[in-house]
Amino acid sequence: MSEEKDTTQRRLDELLESGRVDELAEVVQDLDLHASDVADLIEDLDDADQVAFVRALPLEVASEAITEMAESEEAGDLLAALDPERGAALIHELADDDAADLIQELEPEEAARILAALPQDEAVDIRGLLMYDEETAGGLMTTELLAIQGDLTAEQAIDAIRVQGREVEDFYSVFVVDESNRLLGAVPLDDLIIADTEARVADLALDVPATVRPDVDQEEVGKMLSRYNLVSIPVVDEFGVLLGRITFDDVIDVIELEQTEDILRLAGVSEGEEIRAEWQDAVRSRLPWLALNLLTIAVASSVALLFEATIEAFVWLAALMPIVAGMGGNSGTQALAVTVRRIAIASSELERRSDAVRKELVIGLVNGIALGAMAALAVLAIAAVRPDVPQMLSVVVLLALWGNIVVAGTLGAFVPTLLDRMGIDPAIASSVFLTTFTDLVGFALLLGLATALLL
Amino acid sequence: MSEEKDTTQRRLDELLESGRVDELAEVVQDLDLHASDVADLIEDLDDADQVAFVRALPLEVASEAITEMAESEEAGDLLAALDPERGAALIHELADDDAADLIQELEPEEAARILAALPQDEAVDIRGLLMYDEETAGGLMTTELLAIQGDLTAEQAIDAIRVQGREVEDFYSVFVVDESNRLLGAVPLDDLIIADTEARVADLALDVPATVRPDVDQEEVGKMLSRYNLVSIPVVDEFGVLLGRITFDDVIDVIELEQTEDILRLAGVSEGEEIRAEWQDAVRSRLPWLALNLLTIAVASSVALLFEATIEAFVWLAALMPIVAGMGGNSGTQALAVTVRRIAIASSELERRSDAVRKELVIGLVNGIALGAMAALAVLAIAAVRPDVPQMLSVVVLLALWGNIVVAGTLGAFVPTLLDRMGIDPAIASSVFLTTFTDLVGFALLLGLATALLL
Repeated sequence: MSEEKDTTQRRLDELLESGRVDELAEVVQDLDLHASDVADLIEDLDDADQVAFVRALPLEVASEAITEMAESEEAGDLLAALDPERGAALIHELADDDAADLIQELEPEEAARILAALPQDEAVDIRGLLMYDEETAGGLMTTELLAIQGDLTAEQAIDAIRVQGREVEDFYSVFVVDESNRLLGAVPLDDLIIADTEARVADLALDVPATVRPDVDQEEVGKMLSRYNLVSIPVVDEFGVLLGRITFDDVIDVIELEQTEDILRLAGVSEGEEIRAEWQDAVRSRLPWLALNLLTIAVASSVALLFEATIEAFVWLAALMPIVAGMGGNSGTQALAVTVRRIAIASSELERRSDAVRKELVIGLVNGIALGAMAALAVLAIAAVRPDVPQMLSVVVLLALWGNIVVAGTLGAFVPTLLDRMGIDPAIASSVFLTTFTDLVGFALLLGLATALLL
Repeated sequence: MSEEKDTTQRRLDELLESGRVDELAEVVQDLDLHASDVADLIEDLDDADQVAFVRALPLEVASEAITEMAESEEAGDLLAALDPERGAALIHELADDDAADLIQELEPEEAARILAALPQDEAVDIRGLLMYDEETAGGLMTTELLAIQGDLTAEQAIDAIRVQGREVEDFYSVFVVDESNRLLGAVPLDDLIIADTEARVADLALDVPATVRPDVDQEEVGKMLSRYNLVSIPVVDEFGVLLGRITFDDVIDVIELEQTEDILRLAGVSEGEEIRAEWQDAVRSRLPWLALNLLTIAVASSVALLFEATIEAFVWLAALMPIVAGMGGNSGTQALAVTVRRIAIASSELERRSDAVRKELVIGLVNGIALGAMAALAVLAIAAVRPDVPQMLSVVVLLALWGNIVVAGTLGAFVPTLLDRMGIDPAIASSVFLTTFTDLVGFALLLGLATALLL
């Protein structure tokens, strides 16, 4: 398939360049491109052409493509640019969860206009989903699912599915419920098909290893689905009544999103910045962090001013300051990354039992003495040839490096663990601020010890 | 379900503490725990008890649990600790891909012993899978799938599935192939069920939006499956002959693994370190990096020694050095993280078109001048009250900060982009070494400018 794509890529590029959107729309249909590929094409067009292109596409193609657009903001703008009827027609084509996600991107009045143009029952379903926080199970779930009673036979179940199934897309299992719609179990379609036609559904049903409430955080949903290898996870209320289901594809998107967020936060990039953002947005999201960080580093390094006399006496310290600070920062960043990641993927039991801080303390003690010794030996070697370098400086370096690396590692594990216990996303413990702190400790240790032992 | 678990957790903990593995095995069966939960129990036992516990479990429970163990190394050790017959019996229970993954963890002779104890045909299948690199599509795929000819009716297809299907677990679609087993398309089970019984399979079949060759890297497989929302992706040879399939759950594990790797690499932790590793392993994986880094930082900061006279004349520079170096490091880390992440999630077209370097250059120019100006104003303010601080120092700071931030940002985007073009994982461009470089540039700029403008 991919080869085929490459050959037609050139033709598509031509049409993209020249903005010949009607031809482009035809090619898309001839090639029967996947919605994700169409979404890329849309994103490669400028805003004016985007609207024209979407208008030129058949409804079902356009709607699927818009839901696949990487930056949903852009998708919202595009939907808003269409007239409400066309917009409503697009929404009408979608599963209710995708529809809700799209409408979420719209200004309230635009959303209202489109909802008004939708069939009554559909608007009601979507309004229901819009009540849930975007980042919860409720925000991910679709209410479109198959539920049957346990007393049916496999054959009757399949007939029931033939009827219900036409309304629902992409289902992989059938939920078994009681008369008040409480979830009893699920029958995977493959089991249902290979089952004897007379087998009772209740006997085929497996208990569901995990269910979620609509208010559960999406990250938790992702953990459960991947932990239990579920193709879809049912959402139930406090009485076990089946409200909807979340499928693996939505969860994969969540996992990738959450991990992008973690990496960027650790690097001190606010989650607001979308990966494909313009430079203006990037400046807006990063400059505040950097400005705040300029302040904190300034405070850290102003420690050096307390030891002016010492530095003047031993200019070598100016060269050692960044070494001690930097090694602390790097050890701390390692501990931070490992701990944040550990929390992110740990199942709650393991997480509770994990003791990251003590582990990092030990690691810091070992790495610290090793690195401190190397640095000390280097200083001794230099002291042997340079009379202006006191041998005692090696002891200062050893202790400063060791101390800073221990503090950094322990802190790198402690901060995210604490944040997690407090219910805060540990990834906000950006290494940016950890390194500032290790700068401070590093300078204080190095210059303080130097003042005490060398002057 | 989860409440239920919590209540029994205490009882399980008791049995875990006291190592009463036989009772534990009974409880596991009474509760009908999911394999992932059993896997956690195994991991919480010490090695001796682990073996006894696995022996006490029914084969199918034990085998599923072992494949779910987070650290597959540990799973291999456990399997090795069992006698070959029991080991083979466990392997026999597994899908061939899980079986191959487990056997991969064994010493060659152990693997041979277990393969010898397996039924001939099964051993052949597994040996076939073992030929593929663990990190490729071939290493992920299972050869257990359903393939039918297109000329069957839906009803005949379902009958065919009833026969074939008993051998295969967790299938969500049926592949349609020609007489020489070349892939023509796929029919989702839900479509098959709701189809009219007389409909021809060839008409129900959808083209497969993506297929992979067995030698494709697992990261690429993950991208395709998530891009096209596929529950399983077929693996074909160069003639389009169907070799196997990769299901979403294996891909979710890959996505999480790859992203752990990215985060850790960015933080300068070698991929060898498993998240739940002992401190000894952590030291082994981190100390080499840090030692190498100690060397590079030493080189960077030795630049300061070239400017001894300047620093002695203006000790304030000692306090400004970490500011200039640190701000460069942080801006660079931001650019690095965004670029690495962008490459990781971009579909190949977008990736090729993205121009991260120019974008980061612009961002660096803007952030750099802004931060440089802030710092310069601060220096001017200090100069106003401290006669020993020359006003010209503000210009030095402005230019040094600006320059270092521009270099850092550009480099942070350029290095991973280059690595990616060279086919190297961009995430190895650890921020550890980027920051060392920005230290070097920062010191050189600050002290060089100071020497030129202040002396």
